Amino acid sequence: MDQTTDRRGFLKGLGAAAAALGAAGLGQAAPRAPRAARPAATPVEGLRLGLASYSFRAFKAAQALEMTQRIGRSRLSVKDMHLAPKASLGDIRSFRAKAQARGIEVYACGVVTMKSEADVAQAFQFAKDANMELIGGVPELDLLPKVEEWITRTNVKLAIHNHGPEDKLFPTPESIYARIQTRAPRLGVCMDIGHTLRAGLDPAVSAEHCFDRLLDIHSKDVSEASAKGAGVEAGRGVLDIPKLFRTLLLLGYKGTVSLEYEKDERDPLAGAAESTGYFRGVLAGLEAKAL
Amino acid sequence: MDQTTDRRGFLKGLGAAAAALGAAGLGQAAPRAPRAARPAATPVEGLRLGLASYSFRAFKAAQALEMTQRIGRSRLSVKDMHLAPKASLGDIRSFRAKAQARGIEVYACGVVTMKSEADVAQAFQFAKDANMELIGGVPELDLLPKVEEWITRTNVKLAIHNHGPEDKLFPTPESIYARIQTRAPRLGVCMDIGHTLRAGLDPAVSAEHCFDRLLDIHSKDVSEASAKGAGVEAGRGVLDIPKLFRTLLLLGYKGTVSLEYEKDERDPLAGAAESTGYFRGVLAGLEAKAL
Repeated sequence: MDQTTDRRGFLKGLGAAAAALGAAGLGQAAPRAPRAARPAATPVEGLRLGLASYSFRAFKAAQALEMTQRIGRSRLSVKDMHLAPKASLGDIRSFRAKAQARGIEVYACGVVTMKSEADVAQAFQFAKDANMELIGGVPELDLLPKVEEWITRTNVKLAIHNHGPEDKLFPTPESIYARIQTRAPRLGVCMDIGHTLRAGLDPAVSAEHCFDRLLDIHSKDVSEASAKGAGVEAGRGVLDIPKLFRTLLLLGYKGTVSLEYEKDERDPLAGAAESTGYFRGVLAGLEAKAL
Repeated sequence: MDQTTDRRGFLKGLGAAAAALGAAGLGQAAPRAPRAARPAATPVEGLRLGLASYSFRAFKAAQALEMTQRIGRSRLSVKDMHLAPKASLGDIRSFRAKAQARGIEVYACGVVTMKSEADVAQAFQFAKDANMELIGGVPELDLLPKVEEWITRTNVKLAIHNHGPEDKLFPTPESIYARIQTRAPRLGVCMDIGHTLRAGLDPAVSAEHCFDRLLDIHSKDVSEASAKGAGVEAGRGVLDIPKLFRTLLLLGYKGTVSLEYEKDERDPLAGAAESTGYFRGVLAGLEAKAL
């Protein structure tokens, strides 16, 4: 088997499809055209798969890192029960050293709720001290100017996270996009695909709508496409992950797709492993298209 | 998303590809042409994924069934540490009842070594009593006439299993096929894809070579395509599973693809879950072609 040739054929096929996309758009019309800066010939290099440490929320940091390594994930978005924004520099260094020893890069933290200017300051100082690319967060609306100040000061991005139909402020990626599209470019969206589907939207379409601000993705599967949907092993629910991944590849998404496994809080390893296996399998199946 | 339409487009695409295959063949020339009886229009219905209970060999039968259910597999090939050919009718009924309670069909047993006529008789009587479709086995060559007698008597199939470069008798699927192609049709091959790759062959090509006798598949991944290759989580090794699955879909394979997870003997759940997730993801990615 010649993987190089397969890869080349795959890229060629995607190139043609991306060109078609550029002309015709994908799904519904986007709020604005985010693709002008991305030529169709941009190389596609697969998707970077990560993990949200919330998946292992019932476990101590050392165990969460061990399980992350076990299921083969090397990019981590860390939640506060494992490393909190109030952590000391010593705590941060210690956590990062443990992660590094397992080959894990801590690229983000979150989801961080920000209800005051102090919360904003703490989160950005923390992310900068920990050398993170971005914060997944939920800031109050009136804090957005302060968030922009901190983005400029630290060069850390803020990706606002949608929490589904129960979330009055940010139920969908589109509701975030509408609030930030005229603000600082490094203020963007962390699309939670489960909550997006639970809010009645197709995450593949939302990804295109928000693409120029799509900074991070929390990926999962849900039992039904309504507010009643609950987390399940990826591939066992109703979310069309092949369609989403294909769209992200076509769009040239450069962020991370991090599993946030919500089922089996006390015993998540098997379901998280099955889910990451499914994600890798979908990518492999999509790439094999050019065979 | 309209799964029905996607499915239809997928089948249509595969139909065209299958027609092309029928004319041109796939990969190397097969020892004989096994496709005459399968019209290109045969509906493709995905692959049936199962599990070889050898994956959970360090665990008691009840735990093996629990883990099989946990990772979402509903077809089981049972190994002797969980239910042996010498089992009583009561043991068989008890095991089948426990499996049924978890939604698991025991479609096969194996791998069963047969060194005497008594071994052959015991294995076939067992498989018939347990209502299995087939035995995965390794019979001595001089027992093949006796095996054929038992196949006729019980209507149970025997799928001979290849064990790789160290196996003097049946290293590859092709070495099995050469011995059985003129024998009873229900005498066939259980292709172990890991051992096939370890013997230097591409399992996708071997599948076509042996297709008219391909009755069962033990699927896995291996760290390298040589005798030194060891079992790894599916998707982390060198085996081209998308190519194999695509070939099986194009050929119209109707048997089972059972995971035989060899790594982590004492703690196999996470790796087995990741592997089955990967298999399901590959199928989903291949089907997404028609999107």
